[in-house]
Amino acid sequence: MSSEQAATRILARYVVESRYEDIPQTMRHEAKRALLNWLGCAVGTAHHETIDRALAAVAPFAGSPQAALLGRSERLDILNAAFLNGMSSHVLDFDDTHEKAVHPSAPVYPALLALGEWRAMRGVDVLHAFVLGVEVECRVALSVFPEHYDRGWHITGTAGVFGAAAATGKLLGLSEQQMTWALGIAATQSSGLREMFGTMCKSFHPGQAARNGMSAALLAARDFTSSDQGIEGPRGFAHVMSTRFDPDIITRDLGRRFELASNMYKPYPCGLVVHAVIDGCLELRQIHGIRFADVERVELRVNPMVLELTGKLTPRNGLEGKFSVYHAAAVALVRGMAGEAQYSDEVVCDPEVVAVRERVHATSDASVTSYLEAYVKIVMRDGKVLERHVPHALGTLARPMSDADLEAKFRALVEPVLSPARTGELIAHCWEFDQLSDVGVLGRAATAA
Amino acid sequence: MSSEQAATRILARYVVESRYEDIPQTMRHEAKRALLNWLGCAVGTAHHETIDRALAAVAPFAGSPQAALLGRSERLDILNAAFLNGMSSHVLDFDDTHEKAVHPSAPVYPALLALGEWRAMRGVDVLHAFVLGVEVECRVALSVFPEHYDRGWHITGTAGVFGAAAATGKLLGLSEQQMTWALGIAATQSSGLREMFGTMCKSFHPGQAARNGMSAALLAARDFTSSDQGIEGPRGFAHVMSTRFDPDIITRDLGRRFELASNMYKPYPCGLVVHAVIDGCLELRQIHGIRFADVERVELRVNPMVLELTGKLTPRNGLEGKFSVYHAAAVALVRGMAGEAQYSDEVVCDPEVVAVRERVHATSDASVTSYLEAYVKIVMRDGKVLERHVPHALGTLARPMSDADLEAKFRALVEPVLSPARTGELIAHCWEFDQLSDVGVLGRAATAA
Repeated sequence: MSSEQAATRILARYVVESRYEDIPQTMRHEAKRALLNWLGCAVGTAHHETIDRALAAVAPFAGSPQAALLGRSERLDILNAAFLNGMSSHVLDFDDTHEKAVHPSAPVYPALLALGEWRAMRGVDVLHAFVLGVEVECRVALSVFPEHYDRGWHITGTAGVFGAAAATGKLLGLSEQQMTWALGIAATQSSGLREMFGTMCKSFHPGQAARNGMSAALLAARDFTSSDQGIEGPRGFAHVMSTRFDPDIITRDLGRRFELASNMYKPYPCGLVVHAVIDGCLELRQIHGIRFADVERVELRVNPMVLELTGKLTPRNGLEGKFSVYHAAAVALVRGMAGEAQYSDEVVCDPEVVAVRERVHATSDASVTSYLEAYVKIVMRDGKVLERHVPHALGTLARPMSDADLEAKFRALVEPVLSPARTGELIAHCWEFDQLSDVGVLGRAATAA
Repeated sequence: MSSEQAATRILARYVVESRYEDIPQTMRHEAKRALLNWLGCAVGTAHHETIDRALAAVAPFAGSPQAALLGRSERLDILNAAFLNGMSSHVLDFDDTHEKAVHPSAPVYPALLALGEWRAMRGVDVLHAFVLGVEVECRVALSVFPEHYDRGWHITGTAGVFGAAAATGKLLGLSEQQMTWALGIAATQSSGLREMFGTMCKSFHPGQAARNGMSAALLAARDFTSSDQGIEGPRGFAHVMSTRFDPDIITRDLGRRFELASNMYKPYPCGLVVHAVIDGCLELRQIHGIRFADVERVELRVNPMVLELTGKLTPRNGLEGKFSVYHAAAVALVRGMAGEAQYSDEVVCDPEVVAVRERVHATSDASVTSYLEAYVKIVMRDGKVLERHVPHALGTLARPMSDADLEAKFRALVEPVLSPARTGELIAHCWEFDQLSDVGVLGRAATAA
């Protein structure tokens, strides 16, 4: 079978035949790191108005309480649980990012955890299915990237639906033919427009991908048929939704190379372009015990894209703060942190933060080759000059967040929603996920009393 | 507001501000004809395996029994009811067809009837919303037609979701801003690939359009936000999913011209290209009281597209029979009918039908200008020659099916599923639909005991 003629079937066969023993230890651990990071985002944003409004809309039509709404007290049928948990985990844009294309976890984990909770499945099976789901969605995405994204498709939604279908199809034990159909039913639901960025529909996309992908697998499990060439056929996903398609990217080195190895986690809930500046400020503050009142001037030297995207000098609220490298530097120096709390309206307008912000100067410099790099210089009132070069922002593949970093991020997101004891329990469940005989314990522990 | 900048909002405003008094009497009656035709298709195919499999897949996750599964005994939440009823009405490809683009009713009526039944709404309001929903989906479709379809999109699904959103949004009483959001949420779910033709996913598309469109309206009713330019924005539906877009088609003559006037109904459950031949054979049989045993030879002269699409000389089963103009002519002469029953495996292989089929000859003739036209000549064993020119097939805009034709089609589809008494009751409900104080009576009457 050539990939040009049978990419869908080759991918389906790989997913169906894969055994947990085939997944390298490093990827198993990475899947747990992805779980911890994704779960924190979902629980932390469970009460956002995006979720409140969507829940109010779907609740009258939801089925029996099969799975947890993470971070809340409600339980819903697994399709709606996947939808809402997929949405909440992406609301802050704080979830994981594949080096090149999609946000891998938000369409896949919500579907898997809902199905796994309902059927009381083993952690090891969910972990295995997750690695495969990520592999499928990333390969489908990369086979049409960047043309597909440039055309206007929100690739996390359009490719994510394949990941959710493959992952839940694996958990359901689909045959090769059923898995091929599941990918086809996913293909014909692939959707999500970039026109929606800046509205609630952005996080709607991974939620829909989770729900529709699982629905594709459930239909295929009942022998609901689709084309066998949903991805590569002449009127299939790739040719209709992209101007370029490389089927070999889907099938090459399957089982030997894992896209999950290119997954990144964000330490700060704002655009990646300001992360290196935040790192530099936090590091200088800690190393030199800087008190912000002693700062005379801050000088940033950054890649031009940084000021292009986050050059707002005088942000007036939390949202604008996310587009201001000046606020990013100031709040890191004043508060010593850069979490979601440091991007509230109140903090952005705080007189102490504003006073430091007004002393931050930034220069575009094309010799700074990446927007993930930065030079930070702080001149103190006593004339002392402190400097820091950040060659790779924390969270990039060159300098990944440590397990401890991920735990700290998780605590900051989850403790305001659940108790510290529950938070600790969830962290333990994530690290021991492959030992769980019933993944439902995680969903139940993530539910507010 | 220019249509280039604000097609979505202009369309939303029109739908929100339209009053039933603004809908011409002819369109009100056409909406009832569309209802009768659509309902017959849905009930008639309620037990097809496509529906059995989909129902088995979604039932464990469905909500409370809010609306009827037409032609069956089950009741489901309104989103799942819309999904399954939308699917069943398209399984045989026997539903209505807009002159140029979509199958208008299958994505719109299932959503409206489910919502209307749940909320015990008035028939007149559902009828009004249907006319508007059809207007929206057809205008959106025509604004990107044929490039969008040629690219590989199944336009009944991709445009149908806008129709379902607009129609149910009207019933829900959305504000102009909410309706604009509903169309945006519809836009970002627009999907359905032509690669799926020939599989169960073809009828999945209008089912999904019905469900997702209604879901868009329900979300918008809770102020779930989307882009205000879901259709015309630079990364919106039209520019991402088509190579051509004419926004004026969406906004020109709104309220003065109705696309429902271009709706057609099929008398026979097979491709339009053989309809004129069937007409000619049925008419000659009736006029001359032909007994098929007396037929020496049948000569057809047709547009070249007819043999291109339905040139199968020796069909071996029902499905192949639908692609054989030879079978179409033979079965019409032998049985005097051309309904779904005449396309069973058994009838296609019936020795009497096969004997006549072998005496049918067809000639491609480019001077026959339309595939909806045909010349039929029958040479009898006694030497007599009978001829018939069918300039326009029954069911075309030039020669529409009469109300009585539609009733006969309805009876043939529905009586094998429900009782004759129930069938009559449903016909009466359709013609008096604008008098119903609660459209639920229709759903309940269409439910098997």
